[in-house]
Amino acid sequence: MNPLTSYLSSISSVSDVKKLSDQELHLLADEIRSFLIEHISKTGGHLASNLGVVEMTLALHSVFDSPKDKMIWDVGHQAYVHKILTGRKHLFHTLRKYKGLSGFPKRSESEHDIIDTGHSSTSISAGYGMACARDLQGGDYSVISIIGDGALTGGMAFEALNHAGHSNTNFIVILNDNEMSISQNVGGLSSYLNRLRTDPAYFKMKVDVESLLTKIPAIGKAVFKTAEKAKDSIKYFLVPGILFEELGFTYLGPVDGHTIKELKMVFKRAKNIKGPVLIHVLTKKGKGYSYAEENPDKFHGISPFDIETGSVVPSGSGRPSYSAVFGKSLVDLAKNDPSIVAITAAMPSGTGLNEFAKTYPRRFFDVGIAEQHAVTFAAGLALNGMRPFFPVYSTFLQRAYDQIVHDICLQNLPVVFCIDRSGLVGNDGETHHGVFDISFLSHIPNMTLLAPKDGKEFERMLSFAAAYQGPIAIRYPRGESDNFATITVDPEVNPLKAEILTEGNDLCIIAIGNMVRTAYDAAEALRSQDIHCKVVNARAIKPLDQETLLQACEGIEHIITLEDHVVTGGFGSLVLNLFNRKQDIKEKQIRNLGLPEAFIEHGDVEELMEQYGLNVEGLISCIRKLLGK
Amino acid sequence: MNPLTSYLSSISSVSDVKKLSDQELHLLADEIRSFLIEHISKTGGHLASNLGVVEMTLALHSVFDSPKDKMIWDVGHQAYVHKILTGRKHLFHTLRKYKGLSGFPKRSESEHDIIDTGHSSTSISAGYGMACARDLQGGDYSVISIIGDGALTGGMAFEALNHAGHSNTNFIVILNDNEMSISQNVGGLSSYLNRLRTDPAYFKMKVDVESLLTKIPAIGKAVFKTAEKAKDSIKYFLVPGILFEELGFTYLGPVDGHTIKELKMVFKRAKNIKGPVLIHVLTKKGKGYSYAEENPDKFHGISPFDIETGSVVPSGSGRPSYSAVFGKSLVDLAKNDPSIVAITAAMPSGTGLNEFAKTYPRRFFDVGIAEQHAVTFAAGLALNGMRPFFPVYSTFLQRAYDQIVHDICLQNLPVVFCIDRSGLVGNDGETHHGVFDISFLSHIPNMTLLAPKDGKEFERMLSFAAAYQGPIAIRYPRGESDNFATITVDPEVNPLKAEILTEGNDLCIIAIGNMVRTAYDAAEALRSQDIHCKVVNARAIKPLDQETLLQACEGIEHIITLEDHVVTGGFGSLVLNLFNRKQDIKEKQIRNLGLPEAFIEHGDVEELMEQYGLNVEGLISCIRKLLGK
Repeated sequence: MNPLTSYLSSISSVSDVKKLSDQELHLLADEIRSFLIEHISKTGGHLASNLGVVEMTLALHSVFDSPKDKMIWDVGHQAYVHKILTGRKHLFHTLRKYKGLSGFPKRSESEHDIIDTGHSSTSISAGYGMACARDLQGGDYSVISIIGDGALTGGMAFEALNHAGHSNTNFIVILNDNEMSISQNVGGLSSYLNRLRTDPAYFKMKVDVESLLTKIPAIGKAVFKTAEKAKDSIKYFLVPGILFEELGFTYLGPVDGHTIKELKMVFKRAKNIKGPVLIHVLTKKGKGYSYAEENPDKFHGISPFDIETGSVVPSGSGRPSYSAVFGKSLVDLAKNDPSIVAITAAMPSGTGLNEFAKTYPRRFFDVGIAEQHAVTFAAGLALNGMRPFFPVYSTFLQRAYDQIVHDICLQNLPVVFCIDRSGLVGNDGETHHGVFDISFLSHIPNMTLLAPKDGKEFERMLSFAAAYQGPIAIRYPRGESDNFATITVDPEVNPLKAEILTEGNDLCIIAIGNMVRTAYDAAEALRSQDIHCKVVNARAIKPLDQETLLQACEGIEHIITLEDHVVTGGFGSLVLNLFNRKQDIKEKQIRNLGLPEAFIEHGDVEELMEQYGLNVEGLISCIRKLLGK
Repeated sequence: MNPLTSYLSSISSVSDVKKLSDQELHLLADEIRSFLIEHISKTGGHLASNLGVVEMTLALHSVFDSPKDKMIWDVGHQAYVHKILTGRKHLFHTLRKYKGLSGFPKRSESEHDIIDTGHSSTSISAGYGMACARDLQGGDYSVISIIGDGALTGGMAFEALNHAGHSNTNFIVILNDNEMSISQNVGGLSSYLNRLRTDPAYFKMKVDVESLLTKIPAIGKAVFKTAEKAKDSIKYFLVPGILFEELGFTYLGPVDGHTIKELKMVFKRAKNIKGPVLIHVLTKKGKGYSYAEENPDKFHGISPFDIETGSVVPSGSGRPSYSAVFGKSLVDLAKNDPSIVAITAAMPSGTGLNEFAKTYPRRFFDVGIAEQHAVTFAAGLALNGMRPFFPVYSTFLQRAYDQIVHDICLQNLPVVFCIDRSGLVGNDGETHHGVFDISFLSHIPNMTLLAPKDGKEFERMLSFAAAYQGPIAIRYPRGESDNFATITVDPEVNPLKAEILTEGNDLCIIAIGNMVRTAYDAAEALRSQDIHCKVVNARAIKPLDQETLLQACEGIEHIITLEDHVVTGGFGSLVLNLFNRKQDIKEKQIRNLGLPEAFIEHGDVEELMEQYGLNVEGLISCIRKLLGK
């Protein structure tokens, strides 16, 4: 047996964890860290967050009895250790791969995964729901929601604290405080937690005041002579977690998140407390791997990397990502337009805003994991003459649907939504694909929605958006920007107008965004087989460029729409409705290609595209079938 | 001049308010109350909330200088007094009527209305955005967000507090604490505010401790000997609004919201404080009108009523509202199914849950104005074997779009969404119409969406939903339930199957919900003119009953879809896509009737339906045109 994996190899189920002493658990923790670094360096994945919760997860599985006791991991990217301990160690080489282990909790994988997650700030709500159900059913087990300090800034976490705090329901919330969401955490709550971490007064004063009051009761009495509820009131003095106590939670902590003994002690104590408890655990993101400790942001979600140097293994063509194009363009646009401001919901790095934040610190706002506030905050800025750009991952923008309707579009305000990671994102899977944005945006009055076919067109759309009078959104995918520069070069192009990339009369493909490349390559391949497809780059999804689209399809029977988005309510549906409205449908066969109405699993984008017939080969085969050739 | 309106008649603009003494302002307050009661008893509207903020609004306009200083009213239903003082007194007889004064702030009405509102908890975000813009532009004025304690339970309000509290931006939040949202407010925050209201220790202790520490410095020193930041720490003892202080706000209050002098004093003080300030104002909802004070819930939004008795003037046919049908049905269903639980987001009365709450208090959950939490809380309950029903207004469900996707549909959980106030709601206008729900729900995998044509069918759908294995939503309109009982009586009907109500071969109308009545009446009227329309009640919007719909339209060229919903991404679009997918479109003319892609103004539902051609006459004229008859 390899001595480096001796404890880890002995763990085949959670019950094995309970057999180990605290000291052995610490040795196991070291092994798990090596295991994580080893595997994630090859597969890529969420490293830093998992390195931070090794001891906590071990202590949880020592004290509690999963799956009888329910552990709910907020967001879920920190559940790798939990997966290792619950019988999925042997699957780690498949992590985040097509048909492999998911990077997030998944009910279909294990009875120890209580709810599928991926978005932030949901765990307290779900956990409290489970706890209430348990009480109605007369069950007797613990429900534990584990949430980071970043996720705690999401408003629904507060809604849940407010609701649960009011109750007498036994329910445990573990606040995993690493001073980070994905980047450095910000905001009033973060400052508060920081004071709890660092102010010695919170700890020592408790003892001092207590002894003082015991010794000189007369003075104690004088202090509180007017207080009916002196004991309650003194809590303001003595209790560090007063913010949580005020909401009705018993606050325990802060406790060192890397000492098994302390953790087990506080978990056992929490188990026996009546009503809702919040345990404040201090952890270090990236713990035990120096590169990750120093750059937890970089090692939050990371591609395959070299363990010795901490450098990411280079991949791809080296063309800039869409996020990078966005970041650079915005810095340039902001030079000449002082009204431009940028907002991020805790994603400055992922969305490409680092340079902007450095160049224009006063015009840069990181609002925390708070997409709802981000949007309405943008409304306030725009109402007062600023032009806010809000780059945000498509899937996370879902959380601000109501604010887009009510605070942006109803007032018809010039806010620019830069919808990053639209379409399939790949390895993060179900909870992270951006495949609903057209459906949830295209029916909102006053909204304009664009998609660029490549980096150059994206730049043009950004400068267009910077001068646009009304709400406008640009959707673009994860990864490298394409480059059609050899085909279209007009820098003053109107992004509201569709463009015809390739002529042909056998069939017309109307595509958006990245799918324009697929359509173009398929058309090129078919040309050699004497099948001539017209390829239209729609550019504007809403409003559609009616004139160009209708004209382009004149005299062509077969029309294919192509999108990296669910077909229901998607781009193709908008095109179909247009042709129907214009009564130009009787001579046509309109086929809408896109993703099925289903939650799409994780895997490489290429594999998924193939799976759903949306790669060049799939498109070619569909066209041949339609034309009977 | 009528002595009862002498001060009020002297107010033609906000500057007139500043000329009055405190005593005169109190007299004016009395007049405004009479004015409000007098007018709202005739027009209907939000009475109780406005009676509660009379003095506060007068004090605000005395101290601040609108529109230079920006007042942002959260939700906005309490802005009547603000409207009266800003030149709109003479329009109050048109309140909430078609083309009349809006019941909410509206930028198109007045420069004193800073942002159009209607949904809850947005004011701090919008206000803070305006304040940040002001600072970037070097402006010098106040931004004041006025938010109720109910609205403060909405998560995005917390997101905004967290963000603003971190800053040094001058920004005022007024917490209008009346212990209510629409009903009695609940939750940890509410308990906390209640302690601030009632615990004398908070007030008196401050003085006592201060004098004590001055007198016996040695003891003071002993208490804090270990504290590095004794001064900061002692705040926990001395400051009542510690929860807000911890988030970075200077807390002022609590202050009596019905004493002009106190209000003006605290507003002036807040104006000169650097950084974010929260003023805690205590008000009484319904103040000055005994019926409203006793029943603030009933008088929150009220129909025309008799001033002497406080009774609502009866209207309509007396058939139960859909909300009432829901409430009664759920009580019945819960008798035999202990897994049924009900959740409301601060709307027990409006959604018809009062009886359920009384009958099954342990199975009833009021989560506060927190739709996001409500949905994920439902997920937790369902994961643990319960069957949650969440009745919610269509427009407010918008806020939980992401949670429906991520926490309900991804896990395919049996949660029942009862979407009340779908379609046009009438007098509340733009922010309250439920005309987007089909578009934002129909593309979500695993979701089922139904709409009943009448009360009986609704009952059947509810019992069907109670046994359904997966997420299911039922949309139904505001107001009285229809009654088709004479036509269909099968109590075991399958709501997933469409029904043919009337045969005919000239044209087929496929309608949903309330629009089935419109279709039916139009078809009956046309029959006498020898035009024979088939009328199909779709029942299921998602998934469509393909078989029945395709068969029903066989051999019929003209098809009309009819919905009380925006056409983009709506029911008609789903039907069009179905026919296109089934390649059954070439012989057809499909016309989608519904609401245009625009924000629909306020007015009586009948007037609005006529305006958009969706009443019986409009439908008849459309059919005649289509058929050329």
